[in-house]
Amino acid sequence: MAASSSLLTYSLQGHVSTPNTIKFREGFMYGNLYSSTNSKYLTNPKFLHNRNSSKLENFDKSSVRNEILCRALEIENSISPVLVSKKFELDDVIEAQQFDRETLNYIFDVALDMEKIEKGSSKSQMLKGYLMATLFYEPSTRTRLSFESAMKRLGGEVLTTENAREFSSAAKGETLEDTIRTVEGYSDIIVMRHFESGAARKAAATASIPIINAGDGPGQHPTQALLDVYTIQREIGKLDGIKVGLVGDLANGRTVRSLAYLLAKYQDVKIYFVSPDVVKMKDDIKDYLTSQGVKWEECDNLMEVASECDVVYQTRIQQERFGERIDLYEQARGKYIVDTNVLKVMQKKAVVMHPLPRLDEITVDVDTDPRAAYFRQAKNGLYIRMALVKLLLLGW
Amino acid sequence: MAASSSLLTYSLQGHVSTPNTIKFREGFMYGNLYSSTNSKYLTNPKFLHNRNSSKLENFDKSSVRNEILCRALEIENSISPVLVSKKFELDDVIEAQQFDRETLNYIFDVALDMEKIEKGSSKSQMLKGYLMATLFYEPSTRTRLSFESAMKRLGGEVLTTENAREFSSAAKGETLEDTIRTVEGYSDIIVMRHFESGAARKAAATASIPIINAGDGPGQHPTQALLDVYTIQREIGKLDGIKVGLVGDLANGRTVRSLAYLLAKYQDVKIYFVSPDVVKMKDDIKDYLTSQGVKWEECDNLMEVASECDVVYQTRIQQERFGERIDLYEQARGKYIVDTNVLKVMQKKAVVMHPLPRLDEITVDVDTDPRAAYFRQAKNGLYIRMALVKLLLLGW
Amino acid sequence: MAASSSLLTYSLQGHVSTPNTIKFREGFMYGNLYSSTNSKYLTNPKFLHNRNSSKLENFDKSSVRNEILCRALEIENSISPVLVSKKFELDDVIEAQQFDRETLNYIFDVALDMEKIEKGSSKSQMLKGYLMATLFYEPSTRTRLSFESAMKRLGGEVLTTENAREFSSAAKGETLEDTIRTVEGYSDIIVMRHFESGAARKAAATASIPIINAGDGPGQHPTQALLDVYTIQREIGKLDGIKVGLVGDLANGRTVRSLAYLLAKYQDVKIYFVSPDVVKMKDDIKDYLTSQGVKWEECDNLMEVASECDVVYQTRIQQERFGERIDLYEQARGKYIVDTNVLKVMQKKAVVMHPLPRLDEITVDVDTDPRAAYFRQAKNGLYIRMALVKLLLLGW
Repeated sequence: MAASSSLLTYSLQGHVSTPNTIKFREGFMYGNLYSSTNSKYLTNPKFLHNRNSSKLENFDKSSVRNEILCRALEIENSISPVLVSKKFELDDVIEAQQFDRETLNYIFDVALDMEKIEKGSSKSQMLKGYLMATLFYEPSTRTRLSFESAMKRLGGEVLTTENAREFSSAAKGETLEDTIRTVEGYSDIIVMRHFESGAARKAAATASIPIINAGDGPGQHPTQALLDVYTIQREIGKLDGIKVGLVGDLANGRTVRSLAYLLAKYQDVKIYFVSPDVVKMKDDIKDYLTSQGVKWEECDNLMEVASECDVVYQTRIQQERFGERIDLYEQARGKYIVDTNVLKVMQKKAVVMHPLPRLDEITVDVDTDPRAAYFRQAKNGLYIRMALVKLLLLGW
Repeated sequence: MAASSSLLTYSLQGHVSTPNTIKFREGFMYGNLYSSTNSKYLTNPKFLHNRNSSKLENFDKSSVRNEILCRALEIENSISPVLVSKKFELDDVIEAQQFDRETLNYIFDVALDMEKIEKGSSKSQMLKGYLMATLFYEPSTRTRLSFESAMKRLGGEVLTTENAREFSSAAKGETLEDTIRTVEGYSDIIVMRHFESGAARKAAATASIPIINAGDGPGQHPTQALLDVYTIQREIGKLDGIKVGLVGDLANGRTVRSLAYLLAKYQDVKIYFVSPDVVKMKDDIKDYLTSQGVKWEECDNLMEVASECDVVYQTRIQQERFGERIDLYEQARGKYIVDTNVLKVMQKKAVVMHPLPRLDEITVDVDTDPRAAYFRQAKNGLYIRMALVKLLLLGW
Repeated sequence: MAASSSLLTYSLQGHVSTPNTIKFREGFMYGNLYSSTNSKYLTNPKFLHNRNSSKLENFDKSSVRNEILCRALEIENSISPVLVSKKFELDDVIEAQQFDRETLNYIFDVALDMEKIEKGSSKSQMLKGYLMATLFYEPSTRTRLSFESAMKRLGGEVLTTENAREFSSAAKGETLEDTIRTVEGYSDIIVMRHFESGAARKAAATASIPIINAGDGPGQHPTQALLDVYTIQREIGKLDGIKVGLVGDLANGRTVRSLAYLLAKYQDVKIYFVSPDVVKMKDDIKDYLTSQGVKWEECDNLMEVASECDVVYQTRIQQERFGERIDLYEQARGKYIVDTNVLKVMQKKAVVMHPLPRLDEITVDVDTDPRAAYFRQAKNGLYIRMALVKLLLLGW
């Protein structure tokens, strides 16, 4: 959504405490919580253009959202002005880093509400009349279905492109920006999967409707990171003070990288890296964790780590990253397998997680153990996405 | 649906007459009508696992279904306990053989109701809030659209995968079971087309939601078989005592094989096989018919058969089955054509059927004859699928 | 829709003035406004066949439409019989030529109403219970999403085929007619994109439900033509007396050809053709314009034309039309670019239009100018398609 310069803005009543930049947006003041990389959008002529052109959009959400905000503020003012010191608003979901701890809590609360929505209830129709476009330049059936299910579970509708790269006018050389400007005319929110890092940010800078990044190349996959943290909270009951073992392909897996980043927002977290030599966690994340005071350790003994951890987060060694070096792939692949022997040393309340799909890095006999949390984790993806879509379209 | 071990179960009040195995399912007793090949599921750890894990599914149908059953039973008990001696429940639709004559009648009655549903009526919204996932590992636009139309005609919603084989995580090596466990988290019913025989049964053993087999390789296509029998009943007015000519590729056509199987459930049926030598009906079906006391005959004179039969069921000679032997294909292809000459010898009330698509095995000038039933037959597929989806999601 | 022989029919009260053929259609008299190429359907056995078979369709629209017409006529008769001298009815949308000026006005009025429909309003549900099938034999994400959005914005549902050519039974040799007869059983309206010129007309002659041509090969793309004319009216405020510069590939672009055709229906229009030599406007359109008294001129000075015109309609030079002659393509491509220099000479109220996708024939710095109308034009496509779908399914 280009109408605001920030990925995450928050409106303020009374005095402003933390914002780097302040600007009016349709009658409300917003403080920019995430400004360092975004300030360029403020002076970007494209942004200005879109700000203008968005007024021509009949299905634009802002007026509806404003009404809701207005009503909410009225109620809040009349009842408890104390509670209204801050109101968060989500414009786009672009990268895991955009979320602070407080926002994560808000989102998780909404996700928990989503778990309780019953078929036929009025809440199950809260997005009636809203249209999501899923623009997948790279196929990902799992992620697409999860988003589409989230939208439909809330009464919304979906326009699907299963393989936009091959089929769309992108094949004729259209820029992403032009595609976004066209598709935003047909829908209320765009969920985008792209093969290029940074594509989601580019789309958000162009669009006057919310953009959700459903993965852009080796870059970001923020909803996966959110559902991972949400699953830990749901399964372990807390995020502060937990021990997490990240296992498998730590060099190429954007999932574990984003998860490490988000875990750094919590207190007393300890992270273990368990990976074959060729796919070790890269220094940027290690340095970041150190800078944030997060304890981390590299370890080549999975059993030892498993016995210590609250969460064993296994990942797939991705063959596609090895090119022709099948030998290196085969060598890396078999090294750390989560099987019933690993289960034996794990604590009773610990869980095994995996972003899926899995091959044989978790053996199927683990599935029947109650600590196997990966299918519940996949289901949590639905609730997180329901929460995000709700927040982006209707506000808090 | 793995929560019950049988493809078709039925609940009983009073004494139990026929079941091989009895077990409680959420407060109701069920008798296993189809146990021989399924008993393994009872001891299968995956089944037990899923039974447990299904409790974690918020959108699980069983509680809703139970409520409906409870209410239904209450009403029935207060009015006419005699009628309640048996209640059928359908868990999955896997193969034509799972249906007995009584169940077929029930389904056909529901299908007839479906024909009468009007746009805007409350019945047209009976599946509001329900989500179908169509998981097509092999493209079949016709079948997919038919199922999606059925779901939407009843107010339900659909998650589509037009080509799951190429696009999904299956390409990364994920097992079908894992895919099913993920997709069942996003939907209420899965319609699956697969290239491997037995895939639907595997999916049903894993899933805690209903599975419909929309064709699995050379194996089964049970909804086609059901719509064929339904069409004969609608067009001819009866199933007992009919004469059916099966024409064309009888060796490879799963349609005619399933149809022959289902027709054996009716009285005094006579079946004629009319096919080129290279694609004759195989012995297993012939032996089965004989064992069931069904009269059948091979015949190489289409005109003679057409003059005798209530139904001339023509099929396409499938070129893809002949590989490089184009000569054999061409030879088989032109041998038995239904044209206006065939129409001339057919009885007034007889019909021509075809599973479609057709090439030239029925000439287009046949289309205008009222006895050309194949497009009505395609339409009946909609009603049968509406009935099945309704029965699987809401019960009888 | 084959049930009527004409693409556009109109019912008459009182005496009949212009029709070539008169026939009853379910109780109403219709006059054939578009008969020359259609009269063959009247004697076509397929037409007669379909007329019969359409009675078997349960979801057929005609009875509903009749009721609506009846009610409308009652009201009109009781209030103002003067207004009822003519009532238009749209059966199919096949080609731009089928629309006369009066019909265009009607459609544009409805499109304007569509712009005002609010989320959650009863009008946003006017097509509840209706099903559109989008049958795309050739991928076109933009057009498909536009139609699907139109349907869903009015509460209707969609059955999608993103790539019918490869996936459907067409690959097995089924005729288009057979596919249409099957799909019409599952839906209420078919939007078809095809690679062959004339395919839409063939489909309409077969179907008993409305067909919309979403482009058939080099032939027609009538909804694009309609949205172009609608955009001119919305942007310039009039259609009579305007000056339009058609720029770029005028030989291969069906868009500019259809637009030229439609503009000829208005008074005192002047058209300028600005194109590289290899892709000049063909003589058939020039001759047609001349025969209709439309002034036109070929001109190789874009600046001069831009300074004169109300509309500069730029188009993409389509590389795919040049085959191996990349040299000719490169030569043609760079010749006429709309950039800020062109903007400088353009009048204040003039606009730049483009059917999209664009490459670099309009530079991106033009986007921020209020006269850049191409994204608004794309959005107008939504309103026009909403109007057409509404008119085809519910009548006027």
